[in-house]
Amino acid sequence: MANPLVALVMGSDSDLPTVREATNVLRTFGVPFEVRVLSAHRSPDELVAFIKKAEQQGVRVFIAAAGGAAHLGGVVAAHTTKPVIGIPIQTSSLNGLDSLLSMVQMPGGVPVATMAIGVGGARNAGLFAIEILALSDTSLAEKLHRQRAEQLEHVKQKDQKVQAEFAKQ
Amino acid sequence: MANPLVALVMGSDSDLPTVREATNVLRTFGVPFEVRVLSAHRSPDELVAFIKKAEQQGVRVFIAAAGGAAHLGGVVAAHTTKPVIGIPIQTSSLNGLDSLLSMVQMPGGVPVATMAIGVGGARNAGLFAIEILALSDTSLAEKLHRQRAEQLEHVKQKDQKVQAEFAKQ
Amino acid sequence: MANPLVALVMGSDSDLPTVREATNVLRTFGVPFEVRVLSAHRSPDELVAFIKKAEQQGVRVFIAAAGGAAHLGGVVAAHTTKPVIGIPIQTSSLNGLDSLLSMVQMPGGVPVATMAIGVGGARNAGLFAIEILALSDTSLAEKLHRQRAEQLEHVKQKDQKVQAEFAKQ
Amino acid sequence: MANPLVALVMGSDSDLPTVREATNVLRTFGVPFEVRVLSAHRSPDELVAFIKKAEQQGVRVFIAAAGGAAHLGGVVAAHTTKPVIGIPIQTSSLNGLDSLLSMVQMPGGVPVATMAIGVGGARNAGLFAIEILALSDTSLAEKLHRQRAEQLEHVKQKDQKVQAEFAKQ
Amino acid sequence: MANPLVALVMGSDSDLPTVREATNVLRTFGVPFEVRVLSAHRSPDELVAFIKKAEQQGVRVFIAAAGGAAHLGGVVAAHTTKPVIGIPIQTSSLNGLDSLLSMVQMPGGVPVATMAIGVGGARNAGLFAIEILALSDTSLAEKLHRQRAEQLEHVKQKDQKVQAEFAKQ
Amino acid sequence: MANPLVALVMGSDSDLPTVREATNVLRTFGVPFEVRVLSAHRSPDELVAFIKKAEQQGVRVFIAAAGGAAHLGGVVAAHTTKPVIGIPIQTSSLNGLDSLLSMVQMPGGVPVATMAIGVGGARNAGLFAIEILALSDTSLAEKLHRQRAEQLEHVKQKDQKVQAEFAKQ
Amino acid sequence: MANPLVALVMGSDSDLPTVREATNVLRTFGVPFEVRVLSAHRSPDELVAFIKKAEQQGVRVFIAAAGGAAHLGGVVAAHTTKPVIGIPIQTSSLNGLDSLLSMVQMPGGVPVATMAIGVGGARNAGLFAIEILALSDTSLAEKLHRQRAEQLEHVKQKDQKVQAEFAKQ
Amino acid sequence: MANPLVALVMGSDSDLPTVREATNVLRTFGVPFEVRVLSAHRSPDELVAFIKKAEQQGVRVFIAAAGGAAHLGGVVAAHTTKPVIGIPIQTSSLNGLDSLLSMVQMPGGVPVATMAIGVGGARNAGLFAIEILALSDTSLAEKLHRQRAEQLEHVKQKDQKVQAEFAKQ
Repeated sequence: MANPLVALVMGSDSDLPTVREATNVLRTFGVPFEVRVLSAHRSPDELVAFIKKAEQQGVRVFIAAAGGAAHLGGVVAAHTTKPVIGIPIQTSSLNGLDSLLSMVQMPGGVPVATMAIGVGGARNAGLFAIEILALSDTSLAEKLHRQRAEQLEHVKQKDQKVQAEFAKQ
Repeated sequence: MANPLVALVMGSDSDLPTVREATNVLRTFGVPFEVRVLSAHRSPDELVAFIKKAEQQGVRVFIAAAGGAAHLGGVVAAHTTKPVIGIPIQTSSLNGLDSLLSMVQMPGGVPVATMAIGVGGARNAGLFAIEILALSDTSLAEKLHRQRAEQLEHVKQKDQKVQAEFAKQ
Repeated sequence: MANPLVALVMGSDSDLPTVREATNVLRTFGVPFEVRVLSAHRSPDELVAFIKKAEQQGVRVFIAAAGGAAHLGGVVAAHTTKPVIGIPIQTSSLNGLDSLLSMVQMPGGVPVATMAIGVGGARNAGLFAIEILALSDTSLAEKLHRQRAEQLEHVKQKDQKVQAEFAKQ
Repeated sequence: MANPLVALVMGSDSDLPTVREATNVLRTFGVPFEVRVLSAHRSPDELVAFIKKAEQQGVRVFIAAAGGAAHLGGVVAAHTTKPVIGIPIQTSSLNGLDSLLSMVQMPGGVPVATMAIGVGGARNAGLFAIEILALSDTSLAEKLHRQRAEQLEHVKQKDQKVQAEFAKQ
Repeated sequence: MANPLVALVMGSDSDLPTVREATNVLRTFGVPFEVRVLSAHRSPDELVAFIKKAEQQGVRVFIAAAGGAAHLGGVVAAHTTKPVIGIPIQTSSLNGLDSLLSMVQMPGGVPVATMAIGVGGARNAGLFAIEILALSDTSLAEKLHRQRAEQLEHVKQKDQKVQAEFAKQ
Repeated sequence: MANPLVALVMGSDSDLPTVREATNVLRTFGVPFEVRVLSAHRSPDELVAFIKKAEQQGVRVFIAAAGGAAHLGGVVAAHTTKPVIGIPIQTSSLNGLDSLLSMVQMPGGVPVATMAIGVGGARNAGLFAIEILALSDTSLAEKLHRQRAEQLEHVKQKDQKVQAEFAKQ
Repeated sequence: MANPLVALVMGSDSDLPTVREATNVLRTFGVPFEVRVLSAHRSPDELVAFIKKAEQQGVRVFIAAAGGAAHLGGVVAAHTTKPVIGIPIQTSSLNGLDSLLSMVQMPGGVPVATMAIGVGGARNAGLFAIEILALSDTSLAEKLHRQRAEQLEHVKQKDQKVQAEFAKQ
Repeated sequence: MANPLVALVMGSDSDLPTVREATNVLRTFGVPFEVRVLSAHRSPDELVAFIKKAEQQGVRVFIAAAGGAAHLGGVVAAHTTKPVIGIPIQTSSLNGLDSLLSMVQMPGGVPVATMAIGVGGARNAGLFAIEILALSDTSLAEKLHRQRAEQLEHVKQKDQKVQAEFAKQ
């Protein structure tokens, strides 16, 4: 694989099923990425070391996924001025409202761009990273337009299927 | 002013005091921007026309501020593949929780990068736009490092002031 | 089928099981309707085109079902002055509180009449559309009275069954 | 005044400042209406008597405003098959979330069309009543189009003012 | 059975599994009761007729169970000055928070004594009814003391079992 | 004053303005009561001693007012089988939602009859205590009917005033 | 077993699966502890007697687990000046938000150190008790460092596994 | 001042009015402490350096106060095995619910002992630190008993004042 342009960090490997939605998007678009399990609380030095190294090696966008008291995005953002995108993981007790508020309510000065709770948010994290990269990569920009067109086509097909079902009745 | 690189759209001019936090950041960094009052509900055609025109004229990042059933970010994102940043406006009844959920809970396929509720979020929207632009503008990247350094200096001064206060006691 | 008087729009075909509660009501009352999958975010132009066409072809009431950042009702209402009824879809993360607030908290000027989250709300969306149409259709008004009477009869039967159960004890 | 087409009921005269937003809209559109203070809890018989009488005298739409355990809309809807629109009043303790949930979460069978919490919701309640009446009153329908056009004009003026402000800087 | 002293009303027979927790308590204490399915929205006249008849026939305490926009307790309380106890039913979308707020946030003047959401609340509704009746029935008062003593004994046994489990380790 | 029939306990004297709504009701009805500041956390032994003494001296109903982690009602209920009514005090941070949940969510076995947050709830706590006492005091029962009639009259006057205001326009 | 240094109290034996996370931690660290089922509402005198006895017999830290209106922590804290740690149990209706607010929102003067809802919180309650004990026990302090190191190692292994998975693709 | 035993860290000097409640408690008890403004996001390296240095210089307990996405407590806890106490600062938008959830919902392995939102929580943070230190300092333990006794006396005085007020009436 080429040098990663996107680094995806998750606080626990239990977040991987959600994060995979983001990596699937990046792979579909052919964007090189790396995936790491690094915890703001359990491996904080490794996390900081990684952020610095990743930035030096050309990572342009960070994606951080965490649940509960979800500090990962904020800690990443504290150590880089590259764009940081946050994925709040759905939790069993508070359904991810805790993850969402822990991520999105960042104080002025250090932004974390927060997506929706769970897999939809993870997919959008991947797409948003590509929207950023596409600003200086016309091939990616074209692929984004194609993805939107396919998405539109997909909705249209569903629309026709539903129309057909009700026409029969 | 040069061609705007960032377009800030708000749903109502009552959102301006919050949005100004974002424009102040952009001005400080010397990033050309434009500010518009365009409503997803009350001027929807003008909004769509603007998004398309803005994109053609070189806008690279959109910032959308709205409150309550805050659809503005989602509607902007539906019409562009440029990065869209959302500022949830604080509301009188539900304190902005409605604005936040209306923005951040976007379905997979059309991302809106959501910031904190209110002025802190607006400031971060400006900074995040700059983080994106800085990926292909080393001068902006340097300014970002300087802003972080100044921010650090500011915290250090506050820290010394507080230490001094308690040392005296 | 006759020209549809009610248009039901959903943001995703995954909302169909909920929406069907509304279509069942309309069918029971013999009100012609059409059902479409049109997304405020993924097929926005098709959505706007449909609203305008539907209104021209005689649709008198719109029903919009969406979940999460549920902008569909607001976007429909932005493009028509016909009554728009919203069904907030239950979501996996926030149970539909996000859908509810995204729909009901519309700013002054563009109303969306919001029903309860989920299937109960969908059934009521159908009934509310009929209540509107019944204002100028005495046959529908009579059917509404009959439905209320049947509903009352149904509760009375349940009441007798429960009374009988406890009388035996 | 002509026979009222819309009946506005509030649970307490302390709700009047909010309800006035709805009556202002109705007056602007020239729709005859009546306003009553009738409580689901403190004057329940008077409330039921009024609903029946109002319906007989030609009221076509009910608007109910209440706060806290806001049962008024549900009780009105239980006694009529005319459309009932609910305005959740903002409360001091829970900011109107209690009013909103008490209104919008109606069980299947008896719909209450719920608007936003507070004055924005009250204004929309008035507009939504007019949207219903306009289905069989072309003059009202035209006025609605004009109102939307004026609303659009108003947003455009605000937009120009904001553009002008930032152009100067 | 003797003349009922407690009347339990539920809005839907789907609430019966919860309500049964209350009837079990009443039966254990030998308090005569009746159970009815009466809806504030679907059988409002029957509900009011029942409240008045029940009061005449000697019912001293009402228990009302309802979910969602749970108006039943408030409507019962509007038609009687006997104590009304509310059981908020757990709901699928908002977990019973809607039921709770719809019941407990009654305006000053017409109280509904609200219990916890779901079966624990139903059990306590039964016990609270007995606490009220026991004020003028020493036999019931003694049974209440015995129930508390048995409850204490039950906790002590669980305590010993848990202590034993950990002693072995 | 005669021997108190109702004991009102509050966790802090800062709750007095709310509690006074309940004492005003009791005084109006001529029910003897006592008011104490006793904290489940700061004077727990005094609290328990008081509950036992109060019960021996003829107190028939307890009213407990507390805010935040509002344990007072539960602790009172743990030491008596007399009816305990809870008033959740409005708090500055979470507006009384914490007080409400801490009171109402009592486990099965030890009920606390919870009223609305704040002054409305306090007024209803007083009224509910009287509804209980009125079961064995016909004079109180009559006063309750009179209070309801006056309340009705009060709503009717407000209704006429509002009708008059709108008739003039 | 040696004299217990930590006393774990739970309001119901149904809380045991959660509490076991805490006892497992204490056992791993070799800290003697005792586990009791004592309810603030159903065995209040036994609870108070235990707290006093436990403190006399050398218990240095209390851990209290409870759900719903979770008063246990507050009642324990009212009777001891030893540190009290609270575990909010996840509940079926409100997911533990009720337990959390009932525990954490203690008034000034009587602290309860609250952990996360459910098993994660229980594990941390055990660890936090050890952090306190380790202040005067260097062997425990060393074990804590070792636990952190193992935890770090565990995260690193997960990290390598995830890296390997993505390297293969 | 002697070597600090407690280190209080806040994310912003705007948190000082809340934190002062904690320092007042520590000063009253004669516990040496230091107060720092160190941000998890704006001065992360300084924060980590301070934690390590403080621990070496004998700090035994950390108190962290932060608002919004309140990561400070978690970051401190990630770098020390000393007890960390969290004070969630009240925020303007979500009233501190965001701060609370960001602090209390820590994942298993790295505990943060969370207090109530705002000044009450700050006071308790100070007291809880003293409860910890008192385990190995009998003079502090005695002061704690005295503080509890004074607190009891204070409540008793308020109780007498309130009793006197109502006796007069």
